[in-house]
Amino acid sequence: MTVPASTASDAEAHAAQTAWLRLLSLEWSPKRAHAVLAAFGGSAEAVWAASDVEWRFCCPSLADKHIAQMASVQTCDLSKAWDALHAVGGHVVGLNHPAYPPNLRPLPDAPPVLMVRGELVPEDKFSLAIVGSRRATSYGLSLAKRFARDLSAHGLTVVSGGARGVDTLAHQGALEGGGRTIAFLGCGVDVPYPADNRRLFAQIADGGGAVVSEFPLGTKPEPWRFPARNRLISGTSLGTLVIESPADSGSLITAREAGDQGRDVFAIPGPIDTGRNAGCHALIQDGAKLVQSVDDILGELGLLTLRAPGDIASSPPAAKTSPTLPPEERLVLDLLTLQPRLMDSLIAESGLTVPQVSGILTLLEMKGLARRLPGNAFVRVL
Amino acid sequence: MTVPASTASDAEAHAAQTAWLRLLSLEWSPKRAHAVLAAFGGSAEAVWAASDVEWRFCCPSLADKHIAQMASVQTCDLSKAWDALHAVGGHVVGLNHPAYPPNLRPLPDAPPVLMVRGELVPEDKFSLAIVGSRRATSYGLSLAKRFARDLSAHGLTVVSGGARGVDTLAHQGALEGGGRTIAFLGCGVDVPYPADNRRLFAQIADGGGAVVSEFPLGTKPEPWRFPARNRLISGTSLGTLVIESPADSGSLITAREAGDQGRDVFAIPGPIDTGRNAGCHALIQDGAKLVQSVDDILGELGLLTLRAPGDIASSPPAAKTSPTLPPEERLVLDLLTLQPRLMDSLIAESGLTVPQVSGILTLLEMKGLARRLPGNAFVRVL
Repeated sequence: MTVPASTASDAEAHAAQTAWLRLLSLEWSPKRAHAVLAAFGGSAEAVWAASDVEWRFCCPSLADKHIAQMASVQTCDLSKAWDALHAVGGHVVGLNHPAYPPNLRPLPDAPPVLMVRGELVPEDKFSLAIVGSRRATSYGLSLAKRFARDLSAHGLTVVSGGARGVDTLAHQGALEGGGRTIAFLGCGVDVPYPADNRRLFAQIADGGGAVVSEFPLGTKPEPWRFPARNRLISGTSLGTLVIESPADSGSLITAREAGDQGRDVFAIPGPIDTGRNAGCHALIQDGAKLVQSVDDILGELGLLTLRAPGDIASSPPAAKTSPTLPPEERLVLDLLTLQPRLMDSLIAESGLTVPQVSGILTLLEMKGLARRLPGNAFVRVL
Repeated sequence: MTVPASTASDAEAHAAQTAWLRLLSLEWSPKRAHAVLAAFGGSAEAVWAASDVEWRFCCPSLADKHIAQMASVQTCDLSKAWDALHAVGGHVVGLNHPAYPPNLRPLPDAPPVLMVRGELVPEDKFSLAIVGSRRATSYGLSLAKRFARDLSAHGLTVVSGGARGVDTLAHQGALEGGGRTIAFLGCGVDVPYPADNRRLFAQIADGGGAVVSEFPLGTKPEPWRFPARNRLISGTSLGTLVIESPADSGSLITAREAGDQGRDVFAIPGPIDTGRNAGCHALIQDGAKLVQSVDDILGELGLLTLRAPGDIASSPPAAKTSPTLPPEERLVLDLLTLQPRLMDSLIAESGLTVPQVSGILTLLEMKGLARRLPGNAFVRVL
């Protein structure tokens, strides 16, 4: 998976990021920030290009103190924030950025701005959250790693927090599986918390995925920020898998968020005599899907056609790729992989038009060479 | 709980049992036996009082060989069967006997005759089957014993097979809990199989409940008989609890029977990494209720008002039993316990009429002294 090449020049990109950074520095609730953005066509640059008179006119819900805050931020010096961001190799992803998590964007409390170390890509649409106890036993830890590795090998991005225990093992498993993983922090992306995970975060940012936060750089890991952060973990993902969660675990908040967001909730059962899985069991009693294997998850998400790279060896692609195809069909087919590709990416990379790619994909489906997945994505059929 | 006193004399009871024993010795399918019984008003004695001409006339579906078989059984000597039954202290319970399991009776494949060591009582209506692996680990064994003990302490009868493992521990737990337990065997009630359980069966028969079989005395434990026997375990019970069942366990047959019979299926989860609970997990995925505690079961069955005797100490009955009641209300109230009593038993024991008892129970309910349970049973309210 690759990031679509930006058409804006570096200078334009910098200007856009600066505008989003300014918006972030207001530290407003997503609701108020969305209201202002909506009044200016969703563009942070348009917000800051306007005057206080225009803000007042376009956003009558803003109080005087908000207008004053905006006026102060409009001209403030962001060089320290930029320096700090560069120091950790980070960048700013606004709500209208093509790499903004596609499952998160439509939610009413989606953060307008994300601080990102590493890269987000549109194919992170196919992601699954893995959450659980910080104090998991070897049972939970080994399952977190195994499920993350297997999901990652099937092309799904893993999403979790940055805590010890299940979070950490999920990221490690995803990296082992050769796939992508996203860590949402409850502090600034430049704050390595917990300190044990400094190396893990660097590894994720360095090609393994992204370390992401809705909070400004330097934000300390205050306790209230973690429950708020949980909605991003579930909201970014097609579903949330809960592993070894006792009755009072924070991971149940993430599961509840997932349910409220209309996403699937999955839970792995365990022994009932320790209390360490009581949260998972209560979720299953309330309708979460009991999970014994990765296939249980893929099946529920309608992604059971995904095949792990390990499966490839046993079924060589020769047979079905041999037919002579018109050059444009061949071009699109060659862009397909065993892991989901979004129609938008195929359009960008093929250089063909929307109707052309759409038509070709239908032909490839009819020829049994491609398969459509939920969410306008496609995989190659072997 | 007590067995309603029989109104028939001993001689009459013996004649009835002999008629049912004759029917059993045909070793017919329940379907054919039901057809013959239906033609003679449900009375085994009426069947044998008739002639072969009447059998032919009333049961046109019987073939010549069946009529010949009946004629031979009609006059055969049953003294050996009686001797064997007396040797193990057993008796015969036909479909029309008041102690025939009330949940089993309406099923189309209910056995017309049961051989019983110990006693069946009408209150066995409130029973739960506990089944699971013969080769359970200490996890499954300890849970089988704990759940059986707790259910038994809440007044529910435990029902299971006679095998090693979960079956055995379930019976032991029920006996420890001071309640009743029923073992359905896949062989004759005089065949101690497995031999290890000879003492357990004697203990159950000797006041702890009943050891029961639909097969004639002396029947060997052939493998095919056990799956057939499973329908009796589930059919006798309000629901079936499966503990530590791998994917290929016979206890899944019992769970399937329970589902087909419209009864609740409960399953206890466990670790997913050993395969030993894969059957339980598959049942939950298919809609069985995940169980973490006895309350999960009582709640689902609408029996959460049942209180274990251990609870009594903390809430002395003085307060609510003190009001001055008319003598007949006092009489019925004194027959109520914390464990369910059937309306029929209350009528028999009070010597009052059906409308009297029904009216008094309604008054006691209105006064908050009694509570109605599903299945026309009542408990005392403390």
